[in-house]
Formats: sequence, structure tokens, C-alpha cells
Amino acid sequence: MAKENFVEQIADIEKDFPQWYTDVVIKTKLVDYGPVKGTMVIRPYGYAIWENIQAELNKRFKANGYENAYFPLLIPMSFFTKEAEHVEGFAPEVAVVTRAGGEELAEPLAIRPTSETIIGNMYSKWLQSYRELPILINQWANVMRWEKTTRPFLRTSEFLWQEGHSAHACEEEAEAETDKMLAVYKEFAENCLAIPVICGKKTEKEKFAGAVATYGMEAMMKDGKSLQAGTTHFLGQNFAKAFDIKFLDKDGAQKYAYTTSFGVSTRLIGALIMAHGDQRGLVLPPVVAPVQVVIVPIAAKKGGVLEKCAEVKQKLEKAGVRVKLDDTDNSPGWKFNEWEMKGVPLRIELGPRDIEEGKALIFRRDTLEKNAYSLDGLENVVTELLATVQKDMLEAAKVRRDNRIVYADDLDGILKGVDSGNFVKAGWCGCRDCEDKVKAYAAATARVFAEGESAKTCAICGKKAKHVVIFARAY
Amino acid sequence: MAKENFVEQIADIEKDFPQWYTDVVIKTKLVDYGPVKGTMVIRPYGYAIWENIQAELNKRFKANGYENAYFPLLIPMSFFTKEAEHVEGFAPEVAVVTRAGGEELAEPLAIRPTSETIIGNMYSKWLQSYRELPILINQWANVMRWEKTTRPFLRTSEFLWQEGHSAHACEEEAEAETDKMLAVYKEFAENCLAIPVICGKKTEKEKFAGAVATYGMEAMMKDGKSLQAGTTHFLGQNFAKAFDIKFLDKDGAQKYAYTTSFGVSTRLIGALIMAHGDQRGLVLPPVVAPVQVVIVPIAAKKGGVLEKCAEVKQKLEKAGVRVKLDDTDNSPGWKFNEWEMKGVPLRIELGPRDIEEGKALIFRRDTLEKNAYSLDGLENVVTELLATVQKDMLEAAKVRRDNRIVYADDLDGILKGVDSGNFVKAGWCGCRDCEDKVKAYAAATARVFAEGESAKTCAICGKKAKHVVIFARAY
Repeated sequence: MAKENFVEQIADIEKDFPQWYTDVVIKTKLVDYGPVKGTMVIRPYGYAIWENIQAELNKRFKANGYENAYFPLLIPMSFFTKEAEHVEGFAPEVAVVTRAGGEELAEPLAIRPTSETIIGNMYSKWLQSYRELPILINQWANVMRWEKTTRPFLRTSEFLWQEGHSAHACEEEAEAETDKMLAVYKEFAENCLAIPVICGKKTEKEKFAGAVATYGMEAMMKDGKSLQAGTTHFLGQNFAKAFDIKFLDKDGAQKYAYTTSFGVSTRLIGALIMAHGDQRGLVLPPVVAPVQVVIVPIAAKKGGVLEKCAEVKQKLEKAGVRVKLDDTDNSPGWKFNEWEMKGVPLRIELGPRDIEEGKALIFRRDTLEKNAYSLDGLENVVTELLATVQKDMLEAAKVRRDNRIVYADDLDGILKGVDSGNFVKAGWCGCRDCEDKVKAYAAATARVFAEGESAKTCAICGKKAKHVVIFARAY
Repeated sequence: MAKENFVEQIADIEKDFPQWYTDVVIKTKLVDYGPVKGTMVIRPYGYAIWENIQAELNKRFKANGYENAYFPLLIPMSFFTKEAEHVEGFAPEVAVVTRAGGEELAEPLAIRPTSETIIGNMYSKWLQSYRELPILINQWANVMRWEKTTRPFLRTSEFLWQEGHSAHACEEEAEAETDKMLAVYKEFAENCLAIPVICGKKTEKEKFAGAVATYGMEAMMKDGKSLQAGTTHFLGQNFAKAFDIKFLDKDGAQKYAYTTSFGVSTRLIGALIMAHGDQRGLVLPPVVAPVQVVIVPIAAKKGGVLEKCAEVKQKLEKAGVRVKLDDTDNSPGWKFNEWEMKGVPLRIELGPRDIEEGKALIFRRDTLEKNAYSLDGLENVVTELLATVQKDMLEAAKVRRDNRIVYADDLDGILKGVDSGNFVKAGWCGCRDCEDKVKAYAAATARVFAEGESAKTCAICGKKAKHVVIFARAY
């Protein structure tokens, strides 16, 4: 199969980005459509990315004092009505179990769209004294939100995520926790996913249903649209009051706790694809790539080639590299295309002449550069190269993004900005009306406040500006 | 709090084993009851055991070529009816979603009780050629079976598990896979959980709904009852035909694949408790214990004690030991009870006099022995002791079990055997009638065939015996 054939299989990234995305996720076997509309099957290659994400986040959560636990999937519908904003936000997209064990249920049960209510209920049961605070628990779970328009990883009725839930004795500590965990997310996104993110507070309209304040991290995709890659919520005493999460404080008084929650999901896999992918397919950052290095033997049937490849493989494995030796019958060219499409960061090519000369060719998926290196100490070169690729991918993504942040001082400017695939910074008076106008006129939403920036006037109504907002079209 | 107080909190293990179990799981904070009847919350201490189980099994699955993936929670009800035995077995305990996104669904959706149907559906879509076989995929997921009588870990409407699903080109290979994975389970149960298991084929009555044959591993609990700790199923072409899992074979013909499935669940945590626990609470084997060593400072306020404890902690952590230093304000006696109840394999006691003498006391939870060891190279002693505890716990469990396997040659013998808390081996003619009689007369079920054993006559009807069966009361 000629190299061109592969490229043709994937839609033109410049001309049809949505189709390019679909082609990439399906053809690289990251994901498939499930039999129920809006569901997805996460295939082994996609799930391996998720497992790497989990491992990296677990390390960070643990370092911040969090422990994992598991709460039930089914939540009594009555729980949702206890927090007024929460039910309004989530009830429309809930999936409901009405029959079980052959009988109609007395009370219908919701499949969790998020777990603040059921976790609040348990915290209320467990918490007694200030000594037990803070409570820091994280859950890895499936959740369900019935969506009308779905796309694999980006928006599906069921998805996998983690949801952290903390409870604190005082307001300041809870607010600080949302900042801290947002910083954890940012460091993870940048150093593991190689995706630069902009963090900030969300507007009232965009905040989590039931939160006092929501903070988000927004990532720019290659089409200039924004993807909300993670959020942290300061819930104040909203859920504590709804679920009676109280404790006996030092001063002998019963007080309501302050709670937070925060989450990232399998959306992050979608973010990886759209932040780094190119016409050849995926470009995966080494930290989360299921396969970091693929070894492709050249003239594999010649004596000694496969043996040498196996030897290199073993050395790399010993150095902690996730490596695959492609010893199938396919041609080297076919393998090149296949593993480039799958986004493997480095490819080692090893043929009889290379072995004779004591060297190997290494191809970098991110820059498409190919160079020769000595076989002696190749594992050190590979380890260094992987670190370089990781760093360079982040830098490249930063440059791409920073070139696409523009300022606007009127509605037309916002429209023009997002139409050309930019994030648009603009002054905003703070009123919902103006936010809605941007949505109606430019099909863009307020992503986050641009921290530390100020403007004189609102780009929409011309009144005094309270914030600078980043507007963008979003996934 | 005096030592006795703790013991009093837990029901007498000899007099009321079920209450002892409930006391232990709740008081050690492994688990709590969820708000919906029959559901459980797996608390951090319980979930940490599950994470260790996952890590150990993942290693083994991967070594056998399995990759993890994730399939949807919701299965169209019509899928179940495609395999006649399967629907009969599972339909009565399915939980059904009938409403979602504010609308009645056209087709009701089942929450997966197990995933053969939806995975079969996907394998059918993916599989084309014999070259792609075998397919070896594992899933970690929540499943739901609406049960009337529930107990934390042992039987709950929702539980966590892994389900492996393989597809093969020929019958022999698929059958061999069920043997291989059963052997994997056995090795894992014995070396990680320190639970000896008896493996063998199940009777027709006890097999998985839709399987050609089911193989199980049975573990003896301390009350002499059996717990089915894991099963593997040879599914023949039943699901392949129901879901059209076909491939183009070498000879150019379209053929149905042969499939298998196998699973273990959070039940294993229940098995751990009941196989090893004692009057003081949990006794956890080091391989899966969340905390392997607890350090309890004696006279912690005396200069240098806490520092020395922290130093020991660091050394142990460096040696890869999961260690906790209990530097709370509670008394040493309170801490001893607490961590004994929580089943931590080793306790290090370190006081001013010990430090002066350059030694530490180490208490073994499994044997209740306490000995002094030099502080020099303590990490090596601890590492060795953990391995010894692991080995000794398995040996002790084996002795307990082997002392409780008896033979019977009539129904009364079976009744007497199980009444005294034994596994009872008896000849069986192979007919369902006799199996049902044992159930009616002795409230015992056929656990597995005793491999390599034979009997002349059926203990129930006196006719010619086909098998020797292990009968027991079971969880």
C-alpha cells in the first residue's frame, strides 16, 4: 500500500476538521460507536491513553492528600431536588431507571450525571468533628448525561472521568482547594498532555449547576476552537446545607462544611487528538502515549536484523520505555504509515546496513525529522529524545495558540476573531445580556476571565467593563 | 480506651459469624451502605485493597496478552433475547432505563449485568480475518444485578469487577484459554490473597447462563462455607452465533469464532475478610494490604522518638514498603487495637528505650507474635517478614481448609458434613434430581467437581457415580 493511500483515508485537516477528527479516532482504533446512540466503545489503544492519564493524575492527587473511593451509580431522584440550581442543570439530561428485578421501582433512580448529591449524603453520615476535616476523596467512574448531539470523547451519553470531592471547615480553605487543584490540572495538562491551558473563573452562565464559582482550564484545538479540559468548583455551603454536611467545631458549635468538586474526563483524549494531530493522524506526547517507540525492521528477513531489533527492544524496555517491535509481514512503508497515523512519538528503523554501521535511524513524529544515532547507548538517546519531544510539543502548541489570541473592542471584532479561529479577548460589563448577544451574533461563549487584564469598556454595550473575557467557539 | 472495648465492638466470630462480618466491614471503614437498598459505598480503605487487586491482575492479564478496554454500560434489551439461556438467567435481575433526556425511550436499555452481549456485538463488527484472532480484551467496570438479599462485597446490586472476553479460531484454543485463565486466577488467589482455592468444572445447574461449561475456584471461609471467588466460561459458539462473530479462515470459508469469558469482582474483598479475619478484626495479606507496616511511637513526646520513627518510615518507603506512621495523639494501646482491627500485617513499636538499645519491636498480625530486631537493616527484616507472613497465611489457610474436607456416602453424611462447617466430597450420578435433593435436604450446593477423584455410587440415589462433587453451603 502506497504512502498516499493512508493520507487519502483521512479527510483534509484544513478543509474539513470535523471529518478529519472522526476519521482519526475511528481509523486509529481509539474508539468505536456503541450500539446505543451516543455511546462509545473505548478500544484498547484509546483506553491505554486513559490508563496513562489515570496513573499521572493518581500520583498528583495522592501527593495532595486524596484517596480513591467508589460511590454508587444510582442516585434517588429526590436527591437532585435538594439543591435547586443543581436539579435545574442536570435533570433534563438524566437517564432514569424505573424498573429493576422485574418490578417497577417505588422511586425512580438516576444514573449519576455527577456525584455531589450522593457523596454529600455520605459525607453527612460520616462527618462528626472538625478533626476529620478536610475530607479529600476522589472517584474514578462512569457518568451519564443524555446529550442530543454526540461525538466520540467530546460529548457522549456515557463517559469516564474522575471527580474529586473535598469538604473543609472554613471558606478560605475550600476556595484555596479549588485554586490548588486547578493548578494541579494545569501542570498535568502542560507536562503530560503537552497542552497549554488558560485557567480562570467562569461566568455565572457557564458555571456548574449548584456551584458558587467554577474555574476552568481551556485548551485551544487546531481549528482555533476551545475545549474545556477540566473544571474545579467552589460549592460554598450549597451542598452542605442541602445534604446536612455538618461538624462539631473546636468552639463546640455545629457548623456546615464548605465543599468543592473538580473533574476531568475522557474528553482529554479528544483534546490530545485535536491539539496535536496533523494530516498523517495522531501525534501523541510521550508521557501518555501507549507506545512511545516503535521499532521497524528493514529487510527483516536478512540474517541478524530481527535479532538486533529484539535486542534494542529489550534495552529500551529495561530503560522503562514503552516499546513495540513491529515484526509483522507488512512492508516497512506500510508500517511507517500505520504507526505515524497512530501517533507513536519515535520510530526506530533498523536494517542490515545500519547494523553494519552500528547505527539506527530515529524518526520523530512531531517534527517529522529523521536522524542517525549510534546503537551504543541508544537507550539514553531515546530517553532524552522522548523528553525533548514532550517539551517541544508543548512549546509548539503554545506558539500556535499564542498566535491566535486577538483583542476585540466590538461585536464585529469578536465575530471576525472567532471566525478566523482565534480566542478573542474583550472587555465585558458583566451582564448576561451582553454575554447572550455574543452567543447570538458570533456563536461564541465566554470561556474564562482573562486574569490580571483589564479593559475600559464592554465590547458589546460600551458601558464600563468589569472583566476581560476570553470568547471562543467551543467543543 | 481499653483494649477490651475494641474486642467488644465486634460480635463473637464463633457465635455469630454473619454479625462479626458486618461489624468488621463497617467498623474498619472498608465499606458503607449506600442510600439505595442493596448498594454499597467502597470507602478509601476498601478501595485501596481493590486497587492492589487490580494492579496484580493487570500484570497477569497483560502477560497473557490481554489489553484493557471499555464498553458501554447500557445494553439494548433486545440483545439479551438473542441467546436463549442468557436472557433466562439474567433478565430477572436486570435494572432497566426507560427514560432519558426527559423522554421515554423507544427501546428500554439494560444496565449491564455482564457484557457478553454488547462485546459480542462489537467483536462481530471488528472481526474479519483469522489473522486478527485471538481477540483478548479485558474490561474493569461496574455491573448491576438486582438482588433480593444483599451483603456488602458479597452480594450487592452494583459491584465492581473485571470481565475478560476472548475470541478464538478453534474450539480447542478457546477451551484451553478457560483453563489458562483459571490457573491465572488460582495463582493470584494463592500468592496475592493467600487464599487456597479448589478449581474445577461446575455442574449444568451452576454454570453461567449461556455457557457450554463454567469452571470455578472455590475458597473456604472461616465458617466452613464456600465462596465462589472467580469463574471462567467456555461459551462455545453460543454467543458467536447469536451475535454473528464470524471470520474468514485460512481455507477461505466464513466460520463462527469460539468465545470465552471470565471474571472476578469486589467479592474478593469479602473473601479476604472471611478467609483470614479473627476476633480482633481484619488480617490482611501483605501483597494487597493498603498499609503493610504501621509504626507506633511509644512515649512519642520524648526527644528523638518521632524523628527516629520518621527515619524508619523513610527507609521502609525507599525499600518499597507501604508504611504509615501513626503520630496522632491517641495512646499506643488505642493505636495497637485500631491497626490490629484494620489488619495491618506488621506493627513496629519504637520507644526511647528501644532506640537506646538500637532495636525495635515488630508485631505480626497473623500470628500475634512480637519480637525485637536490630534497627540496623530493619528494612531488610521487614521485607523478609512481609514475605514470610504472606507465605504463612496461605499455609495456615490451607491447613484450616484441609482439616475441613470430609467424605460422605449418603444424604445424611452430606448434611452432617456441611452442618459442621465442612466441604463434603460425595459421589454423584450426574442427574439434576439428586443435585436438587442435596439442596433441599442439606441447604448445600455442588461447588465444583473434585478433579482426579472417582466414586462408585451416587451418595444420593445409590446409582453409578459419574463424578465426585464438592458440596458445601455457599455465599
